[in-house]
Amino acid sequence: MRRINMADAGFLLMEKRETPAHVGGINIFTLPRGVNEQRFLAELVDVLRNAEEFRKPFGEYVVAGKAGPLGPMYWQKDDQMDIDYHVRHSALPQPGRFRELFALISRLHGTVLDRNRPLWEAHLIEGLQNRQFALYLKMHHATIDGVGAMHLTEAMCSTSKSARVTDSPLSLAAYERYKAHKFAGKPRRVTPKDSELRSVANVFKEQFQSSANLFGAFKRVGNAWIGRGGDLSVPWRQMPRTSINSNVSGARRFVAQSWDFDRIKAVCAATGSTVNDVVLAMCSGALRQYLIAQNELPKHSLKAMVPVSLRQEGDLDSANAVGFITADLATNIKDPEKRLKAIHASMVAGKELLGGMSAREAMVYMQITQLPLLLTSALGLASRLPAFSTVISNVPGPRKQLYWNGARLDGIYPASIVLDGFAMNITLVSYNNSLDFGIIACRRSLPQIQRLIDHLEESLSELEEVAGIHAPRTRRRSAGIKAKSKMKSKPKSKPKSKPKSKSKPKSKPKPKSRAKK
Amino acid sequence: MRRINMADAGFLLMEKRETPAHVGGINIFTLPRGVNEQRFLAELVDVLRNAEEFRKPFGEYVVAGKAGPLGPMYWQKDDQMDIDYHVRHSALPQPGRFRELFALISRLHGTVLDRNRPLWEAHLIEGLQNRQFALYLKMHHATIDGVGAMHLTEAMCSTSKSARVTDSPLSLAAYERYKAHKFAGKPRRVTPKDSELRSVANVFKEQFQSSANLFGAFKRVGNAWIGRGGDLSVPWRQMPRTSINSNVSGARRFVAQSWDFDRIKAVCAATGSTVNDVVLAMCSGALRQYLIAQNELPKHSLKAMVPVSLRQEGDLDSANAVGFITADLATNIKDPEKRLKAIHASMVAGKELLGGMSAREAMVYMQITQLPLLLTSALGLASRLPAFSTVISNVPGPRKQLYWNGARLDGIYPASIVLDGFAMNITLVSYNNSLDFGIIACRRSLPQIQRLIDHLEESLSELEEVAGIHAPRTRRRSAGIKAKSKMKSKPKSKPKSKPKSKSKPKSKPKPKSRAKK
Repeated sequence: MRRINMADAGFLLMEKRETPAHVGGINIFTLPRGVNEQRFLAELVDVLRNAEEFRKPFGEYVVAGKAGPLGPMYWQKDDQMDIDYHVRHSALPQPGRFRELFALISRLHGTVLDRNRPLWEAHLIEGLQNRQFALYLKMHHATIDGVGAMHLTEAMCSTSKSARVTDSPLSLAAYERYKAHKFAGKPRRVTPKDSELRSVANVFKEQFQSSANLFGAFKRVGNAWIGRGGDLSVPWRQMPRTSINSNVSGARRFVAQSWDFDRIKAVCAATGSTVNDVVLAMCSGALRQYLIAQNELPKHSLKAMVPVSLRQEGDLDSANAVGFITADLATNIKDPEKRLKAIHASMVAGKELLGGMSAREAMVYMQITQLPLLLTSALGLASRLPAFSTVISNVPGPRKQLYWNGARLDGIYPASIVLDGFAMNITLVSYNNSLDFGIIACRRSLPQIQRLIDHLEESLSELEEVAGIHAPRTRRRSAGIKAKSKMKSKPKSKPKSKPKSKSKPKSKPKPKSRAKK
Repeated sequence: MRRINMADAGFLLMEKRETPAHVGGINIFTLPRGVNEQRFLAELVDVLRNAEEFRKPFGEYVVAGKAGPLGPMYWQKDDQMDIDYHVRHSALPQPGRFRELFALISRLHGTVLDRNRPLWEAHLIEGLQNRQFALYLKMHHATIDGVGAMHLTEAMCSTSKSARVTDSPLSLAAYERYKAHKFAGKPRRVTPKDSELRSVANVFKEQFQSSANLFGAFKRVGNAWIGRGGDLSVPWRQMPRTSINSNVSGARRFVAQSWDFDRIKAVCAATGSTVNDVVLAMCSGALRQYLIAQNELPKHSLKAMVPVSLRQEGDLDSANAVGFITADLATNIKDPEKRLKAIHASMVAGKELLGGMSAREAMVYMQITQLPLLLTSALGLASRLPAFSTVISNVPGPRKQLYWNGARLDGIYPASIVLDGFAMNITLVSYNNSLDFGIIACRRSLPQIQRLIDHLEESLSELEEVAGIHAPRTRRRSAGIKAKSKMKSKPKSKPKSKPKSKSKPKSKPKPKSRAKK
């Protein structure tokens, strides 16, 4: 039995039927040329089931200690692991568009993992058009975070078409192999010990006395609360309430789309912004349009919780090493240029705050400032006292074309967590030459979430205009971005400055024709 | 808001993540000749989504009253019903055998229905071999019981190939049409009022004073407890503990198979038994073999809870009108003839007990005797103090060949509920000329449940031998019983008296070659 550290245990404690606390990754592949689909996929299922031993904690389940369900929790080895339960072969009904895939992912992502077993499922999904197939990995957030999930994908795949793996990416063997390869020659740094993080109260007390930086950070947050923080945004302060801050039901809606990374980078270069700034500005413009269409754009700007990795280089073992910055999305500013500037300023202020601390101090700081968040969530007050408006998470992924046993990896679409008070989550992964967005939302509170995909494109076009870039008038395709053949492609050549319609026809994001440059 | 009566509310109160309280019906169909599969199934999905209004409570969700979650509960109309959430189009991976279907049903049956919505899902499943497809209806037991589910199937289907329906079987229109047709000219009887069943304690007190029959029934149960009950079996007394009485985890395993009704009827005629007696003897022999193979056949006989319908003719409205008899399965008796006799005697005693009461008295009696069952379940004691060994439920279904918009209904396979202490449930439906068995079990406590299908056949063969019948040496096929073409059919011509092997190869029940008579 291994004690589960506080950061990971938090995700177990907050989980309810309505708010499952797992994260998902939808990897889309194209079958290698000439293979027999049925045989090839059956072999991949065997690969996924093949593990002599699983890396921790993927072969373990959660047990409560003597103090009961609210006391410390432990990982316990599962001696009767039923691999057929965890690795599932699924299929899409005809015609096998992304619409059918998203419908299935929405369902699979809306059910709670079985606490009697190791907290993961792997779904190999056949039946996509254009010889594509998908792998949906569903893992409890107590077992892994976004950066960890990227390591998994990298461990499973290769930059070589001819490379072959025969074991599960969750196997101990794959993990050890990857670790040896990835960090060959690099000394591994020491990560915070579990005991150091055991009790927020103790650590707070201890660190508060010994750390000038941490003290300074609290002082700055305090100033921001009373309105003297400059550009620094802090949780709860002037936080508007919209349908995005509803309490959530148990059902989900998932949509995904890719954008060409070069488009975002061009805006960065022309405006002196970071990728994160431009991504946040894209989301901000899209959310603004969405809320205008819903007739609920609030007077105060939306704020986004932007997770930042506190994972130290070489640390593959921590399940969760995440802090966050509170970004002002400036949704109350109509002009996209001014909006981008406001977002940039707020991110600079947030980063300064975190940058002044050591990684360890930052983690302590996060645990303390997140405590009220867990409290309002546990007390059912999160929708009335939202700490943020939404979560926008940018996960750096592999920047090269990858293959899984010869199958080309076309996209990595993340599906994260929604909570009471945060009915939507936007997560994106930078993979190869694209940014792959995955949006997950409560199906009941936000029924029109698919419109955000269109709004994101409109918002990026606006930013390109601000940057003086002659952007292509068509968009890249959704999840099938790298698929060779066209599927129901619908060339869209809307003028970029066209006023946004409030009554778009209800439709799932359809694959768009590829950007031609 | 309508108050939910106690019998229905019980299923809501006892539901946990590990013990979802929904029932399922898996209807297998064959596509009509010459139709385009994709178009035909898309039309059926539209049919399932088509309802101007749903019959109660399929358009309502559960709300707690002022007394909180443990007080009375109510049905409240869902004004934002999201029909795409409830009606789902799914598919099986290749090669689309029953093995793949059972794997999908096992998964779908293991997740809890969303309490924020009306408590049902309908899954149209494509991808079966031989131009078959499946409709899996998942409905909370608080909304319907087995007999009610049969009425649904009948309302949806027709004995005519050319008949067409355009609305959901759960629509109010379909329900009213069916009721008018089914009970044309028959006066509907009055069903017990909700107020009459409100409080077990009150009703008990009231009825105990006024009813000699009920008093007699308790006296007999009391006598049986102290060993003077003759053939009457009662809950808890001499109840052996086996793996079937484990606490359950949240995952399920589902298997199904059909048997020719004529074979069972021939045994009934030759031995003077009822269909229920022979079915119980089949199950008893199979369970005996299963437990011998697991090396855990107990000294005392297993007892089965055998639900009996207390539904009055013409009552389509009660969600639950079910009582039960405790049947002695006589698993400690080796000789199949003596076993059948013991089962018969125990069923006669049980029926006498219920037969001496009016339907209303029987319902009251059931509510009282089930109270300790709910208590041990709620207290987590059910696996230590099992009231029964298992549940075996025989649901009378339509005895004619049915069609759904021209698609031939090949079989109706039920998937019921498992609970802590009752890790397996056997339910069967008599449909057309067959008995369609569906077995659902906790995936962790009973990993080898698929073997029961073989044991059931062996057990029936034994009974045929007892009855002096020259039974066919091959079995009917599983779920695809009426499919025309063969799928991986495996002729089995095991000599019937062959000793049962303890180490069968692990395998899902495979479609068997059809019985040739």
